[in-house]
Amino acid sequence: MSSSTLDLASLQVRFDAFKAQNLNLNMTRGKPSPEQLDLANGMLDVVSSSDFTAADGTDARNYGGLNGLTAAEALFAEYMEVSPSELIMGGNSSLAIMHDTLVRAVLFGTVDSPKPWHKEDKISFLCPVPGYDRHFAVCELLGIHMMPVPMNADGPHMDTVEALVRDDPSIRGMWCVPKYSNPGGQTYSDEVINRLAAMPTAAADFRIMWDNAYAVHHLVSDPPHLKNMLRACESAGNPERVYMFGSTSKISLAGAGVAMLAASERNISALRKQRAVQTIGVDKLNQLRHVRFFNDMNGIHTHMTGHAALLKPKFEAVDAVLTRELAEHNVATWSKPQGGYFVSLDTRPGLAKRVVALAEEAGVKLTPAGATQPYGNDPEDTNIRLAPSFPSLAEVEQAMEAVAVAVLLASST
Amino acid sequence: MSSSTLDLASLQVRFDAFKAQNLNLNMTRGKPSPEQLDLANGMLDVVSSSDFTAADGTDARNYGGLNGLTAAEALFAEYMEVSPSELIMGGNSSLAIMHDTLVRAVLFGTVDSPKPWHKEDKISFLCPVPGYDRHFAVCELLGIHMMPVPMNADGPHMDTVEALVRDDPSIRGMWCVPKYSNPGGQTYSDEVINRLAAMPTAAADFRIMWDNAYAVHHLVSDPPHLKNMLRACESAGNPERVYMFGSTSKISLAGAGVAMLAASERNISALRKQRAVQTIGVDKLNQLRHVRFFNDMNGIHTHMTGHAALLKPKFEAVDAVLTRELAEHNVATWSKPQGGYFVSLDTRPGLAKRVVALAEEAGVKLTPAGATQPYGNDPEDTNIRLAPSFPSLAEVEQAMEAVAVAVLLASST
Repeated sequence: MSSSTLDLASLQVRFDAFKAQNLNLNMTRGKPSPEQLDLANGMLDVVSSSDFTAADGTDARNYGGLNGLTAAEALFAEYMEVSPSELIMGGNSSLAIMHDTLVRAVLFGTVDSPKPWHKEDKISFLCPVPGYDRHFAVCELLGIHMMPVPMNADGPHMDTVEALVRDDPSIRGMWCVPKYSNPGGQTYSDEVINRLAAMPTAAADFRIMWDNAYAVHHLVSDPPHLKNMLRACESAGNPERVYMFGSTSKISLAGAGVAMLAASERNISALRKQRAVQTIGVDKLNQLRHVRFFNDMNGIHTHMTGHAALLKPKFEAVDAVLTRELAEHNVATWSKPQGGYFVSLDTRPGLAKRVVALAEEAGVKLTPAGATQPYGNDPEDTNIRLAPSFPSLAEVEQAMEAVAVAVLLASST
Repeated sequence: MSSSTLDLASLQVRFDAFKAQNLNLNMTRGKPSPEQLDLANGMLDVVSSSDFTAADGTDARNYGGLNGLTAAEALFAEYMEVSPSELIMGGNSSLAIMHDTLVRAVLFGTVDSPKPWHKEDKISFLCPVPGYDRHFAVCELLGIHMMPVPMNADGPHMDTVEALVRDDPSIRGMWCVPKYSNPGGQTYSDEVINRLAAMPTAAADFRIMWDNAYAVHHLVSDPPHLKNMLRACESAGNPERVYMFGSTSKISLAGAGVAMLAASERNISALRKQRAVQTIGVDKLNQLRHVRFFNDMNGIHTHMTGHAALLKPKFEAVDAVLTRELAEHNVATWSKPQGGYFVSLDTRPGLAKRVVALAEEAGVKLTPAGATQPYGNDPEDTNIRLAPSFPSLAEVEQAMEAVAVAVLLASST
């Protein structure tokens, strides 16, 4: 670094000043702010003691319907860009559907597995990095060996991916957050999607876990377009290759959203049979709240402009503070996402853990360094995920200044 | 049978009259009636756009809290007669918690399994019969071999159970619906519970799946008491032996209840770690609806007297019609439950399937014969489960008359 421009003593003074404030700021998780949740408060009023019958006459209070209400199926099929026969509606957690889908592959195999995955010597998954720690935790729990692959600006490094899946039959799957990737913010290009859909794989049952968590979560008015991965897989002759996941947790109410899985009819038919043994059906009253509140995709898109209006200033503040404090010193790089929930910050090699520790001393809790890598192991110790959604704008500015000072201090000593 | 008293021609006339009516009555599932659900409609109004904060200040809309709200934990710990540290709160389906708990045993083993169950040559479960088809479906899906054991009036035939589990190390568990058993209506006696808790088992990780689905679902004013199974297991030195399940699906709203699992702290601690990989947490808004609507156990008990008032006439009608039509002919026996959702009807051997088919011809859909047995196979072909909760009282009377005619006809030909 151009350390000539850095005055260690004055940095220490700024750091000590943060410590003296006893801040308690948290930028660890992609959690909506109360103001974002307020946008969906109306959802809590559209179902009441006098109004719980769906448009098709279904009593939303009672048992029945694995996928719930027809109207909810229709809305979220459109959200996922599939037909209702290609959809499974879940509860309040897309993570649970992802977890359960992999559990089923381990226990029973997929529709084109030679045998259940637990009967194989080794099952491996490709993990584009940096990535989402909760994806990695599912693999770790299930004993699925994780292999990191690097990310480019338009998705995973496809030469690497293609070479690995072509030669290694233990590789049965891959995690992707294709739009506004967690945490890097990348959106997969059509070319990457076409190559993922078409690439030859040594395993007959290779599955892409397509966690499209931020499908409508734009921060810009001209968002990038994401190609429909299921249709790409069909066109490439690999219709069973992808499981696509979605959720309204960051659209409606974070703890009371609805989640979904979309895939080929053959995949869905097999998974529905297994799921019918697990549950009688989803909470149709909560589906009814969603259907009545959003009405249609236009309702969802309009609603998300409200989220963007609240989130954009926070993301701009992250970039502004980092630019102001760090740009001239050449000590870090960071993403400038067009949507989603995260900023990915890369320190110089070997400093991420130190920065997170210093930030905590300064009163700012960050996601643990390493969390964005399989097994929590960042070999370069450079990546830190910043989640600016929950704190207020003033807190984001304050937290980012503390983080910047932590980066500068770590880079100077 | 005393067929002298039966006039086949007039039976056929009655049967044809039912057919001519083109009835469409359904007694297949234990589904609350709309009037029962109406009792909990107030739950849909106690959380609104202006009132979503829990008593402890938690914003029930956002992420956070694997078990959800402290107040919900407290209420449902009391409901399950355990402490909050012995409790996992689930979503809207106790079946899902049961399924997932067995999935975890298969994938990872329990806290005292020598190895994951999928690595064993054979895993067996005892299934008191008649029993609940959805329990059996979970075992069948997971490849768990089911062994039927007979039921007495006070629970499973314990001499049989004790002999089997003592000698066969493949027997790792047992299904129990200990109160108002599905479908027989039996409540387990203290003696049965003490023997279940204390019996030596060849398997170190023997687990009782204690599905206490009808804990507060009484039809009588002086309900039988059910001994606390977790405490019985602790007293017997086998604290890890039982997983207890509960649900408000038949207390609040059938599709939008909350479910729970109670067990020893050691079991719960291991299961919570695995569950934290599956989900970020439960729907706290729905927990808040429950906490505000019921307030405490008194609220639940009072609420359930309303259910009893609606259900009792239907159960009395089942007994009255069967007594009137069948008693003198000695062609069937049936249960007279003090609570729960079912009447268990036994025809003469070899006739249950025929009765169900005839009833369907007469316009009354019954649970398929055999459903109350593992693999759907009733070796005697005698047992039929009747579920009188959903139809109106007039429909129950009409349906039961048709069923009775079907029994008489099957017994006469």
